[in-house]
Amino acid sequence: MIFNDFNVRISPKASIGKNVRIGDNTVIYDNVVIEDDVTIANNCIIGEPLNSYYSDPEYNNPSTTIGKGSLIRSHAIIYAGNRLGEYVSTGHRVTLRENNTIGHHTVIGTLSDLQGNLTIGHYCRLYSNVHISALSVLGNFVALYPYVMMTNDPYPPSDDLKGAVIGDYTQVAAHSTILAGVKIGQNCLIGALSVVSKNVPDYSLVMGEPAELKMDVRKYVVLGKGHLYPWMNRFSRGMPWEKTGFEQWIAGNK
Amino acid sequence: MIFNDFNVRISPKASIGKNVRIGDNTVIYDNVVIEDDVTIANNCIIGEPLNSYYSDPEYNNPSTTIGKGSLIRSHAIIYAGNRLGEYVSTGHRVTLRENNTIGHHTVIGTLSDLQGNLTIGHYCRLYSNVHISALSVLGNFVALYPYVMMTNDPYPPSDDLKGAVIGDYTQVAAHSTILAGVKIGQNCLIGALSVVSKNVPDYSLVMGEPAELKMDVRKYVVLGKGHLYPWMNRFSRGMPWEKTGFEQWIAGNK
Amino acid sequence: MIFNDFNVRISPKASIGKNVRIGDNTVIYDNVVIEDDVTIANNCIIGEPLNSYYSDPEYNNPSTTIGKGSLIRSHAIIYAGNRLGEYVSTGHRVTLRENNTIGHHTVIGTLSDLQGNLTIGHYCRLYSNVHISALSVLGNFVALYPYVMMTNDPYPPSDDLKGAVIGDYTQVAAHSTILAGVKIGQNCLIGALSVVSKNVPDYSLVMGEPAELKMDVRKYVVLGKGHLYPWMNRFSRGMPWEKTGFEQWIAGNK
Repeated sequence: MIFNDFNVRISPKASIGKNVRIGDNTVIYDNVVIEDDVTIANNCIIGEPLNSYYSDPEYNNPSTTIGKGSLIRSHAIIYAGNRLGEYVSTGHRVTLRENNTIGHHTVIGTLSDLQGNLTIGHYCRLYSNVHISALSVLGNFVALYPYVMMTNDPYPPSDDLKGAVIGDYTQVAAHSTILAGVKIGQNCLIGALSVVSKNVPDYSLVMGEPAELKMDVRKYVVLGKGHLYPWMNRFSRGMPWEKTGFEQWIAGNK
Repeated sequence: MIFNDFNVRISPKASIGKNVRIGDNTVIYDNVVIEDDVTIANNCIIGEPLNSYYSDPEYNNPSTTIGKGSLIRSHAIIYAGNRLGEYVSTGHRVTLRENNTIGHHTVIGTLSDLQGNLTIGHYCRLYSNVHISALSVLGNFVALYPYVMMTNDPYPPSDDLKGAVIGDYTQVAAHSTILAGVKIGQNCLIGALSVVSKNVPDYSLVMGEPAELKMDVRKYVVLGKGHLYPWMNRFSRGMPWEKTGFEQWIAGNK
Repeated sequence: MIFNDFNVRISPKASIGKNVRIGDNTVIYDNVVIEDDVTIANNCIIGEPLNSYYSDPEYNNPSTTIGKGSLIRSHAIIYAGNRLGEYVSTGHRVTLRENNTIGHHTVIGTLSDLQGNLTIGHYCRLYSNVHISALSVLGNFVALYPYVMMTNDPYPPSDDLKGAVIGDYTQVAAHSTILAGVKIGQNCLIGALSVVSKNVPDYSLVMGEPAELKMDVRKYVVLGKGHLYPWMNRFSRGMPWEKTGFEQWIAGNK
């Protein structure tokens, strides 16, 4: 019943690729480009106009791109000015404010709230209900678990906003908060409910409030399991090294 | 104005009981059974198809049951394969992924996100915005306060998922995180913002990050109030012992 | 495309001011008063009936007011009995239960969940995804950052509910929890992920779990920045002292 063209409204200024499916009650605004093989479920808003739309009679909607093969689940609100790469997928009820750049194969979980002007790499996994403040930067293969928050205001309230940065492969466990301007390196593991207030070097295991460096994550031993981090040699589902293994894949990319 | 059959769409393969009300813009998919006396408010999706629907032309929707007398508030997304008992009620914007079994008289608060393959008992109270990872198990009369999260991945990312288990009557205060595979006993009280990383015996008061056992909850004295836990002798609103008191009710159940 | 009167439904018992715009699929229930110059975006529900509507055939919807110049973004659910002052604005998907009084120029962020019977002052900033339990009270110029929660039940579950109170100008950082009945004074700064379990005097910097008094916030020095709190002399965007500065403004109000 989703794809029966019930109440679908598409601006004549939007561009729709081949083999695109659009669900009931979904609205596609001006200057949206939907590439081939995209599925957009019901009740979505794609290309939501910016604030100035409400007051500027000359308003022109910035362009928005939904990359080839992407899947946008129901009730998404994606503002104008977003650039989603190929094969991005979202959960339900995501909110993407304006001007985010999101890499290919990245997953954005249900209820996630991306505040705009973000740079997010490829193959990231944002689980349910993460909140990313404007100007934050994620590398590739980063995972944020539910309720993780990245802030951008060091002395609230201020206009001195500084996005936090998270390096490739880093995993941030549930309910953690990354404070404004903090730089977290590659291959780190941040424990649940941490408050990260200082820069974190590559390969760190940190946790606590405020978060403290516990050890090099490569030395972290899980009882009965051995060394589990970095994680790329033991987990490949949905990753580009799914067929070859990580070592062969990374060697082929050098 | 809710129940004026405006834009309501019901699959011919759905079964609708007597005295059922369905709100505007709500969609009921294939193989959904709505039992008698159910109210479903506006903008809900009941029996949302699983992921394979998007790619499998032979897709057949699993069956979904909404038990007698249940109240589903607006904007719910309930996937196919859920089995809701009698007199379940939800807040607004709940998301129930596939294959949950939810007991009778359980309440699921606004914005809650239930990830699928859960077993939830009777008379549970999930307050706003809880997140329950797949495979978690709740007993009966369990309460999770807002932003509580139950995780299932002990070494993220992995495929070695283990649901956490919470025993009957246990109360988990706001913003707490229950880590993968942890077993919390019956009649416990978990303090706000705790991270529970180890099993917790029956009748424990635990709190902190990581959560530590503070005392037997039966010894916990609140100034001017005395012993308040277990709570069943002092609180009965909406509980099956509302008229008889807990002792008489439990005696009648033995 | 928002304001093309597509599926808009307005009760004949509602009152709509001049220069009001109402988005697609929005519903305005009985006894709602929309003042002049209000914008309500698409898919909103204004004046949502209370629980008794489902069972009482004589149900009469309490009155609801949306003050002059307010902007309600998409997917809001605003129950009957709310009184929003002038120039209030909301993000997307806010849920306002019944009988809140909300001051003028207050901002309510995306996904925020206001539980009813609240008193919220003027010029407050509630960022994304805050949860405020019933009976809580906020003064003027208060900010709650994302995932802040105010609770009201000191010994859950109970019916002995006590709202927490936050004084003028106080800032509560992300993921903090304010426990039932706690009184936080004016001009305080509460650090991220704090659990505030005791009353907090004016001008306090507190943080931690449980939150402890660290110092008088007026003595707090940020390296290279000096004294930043109280914040009103260094931040004025959107505040009534934007043109005059705080000192002149406050002097004029005495």
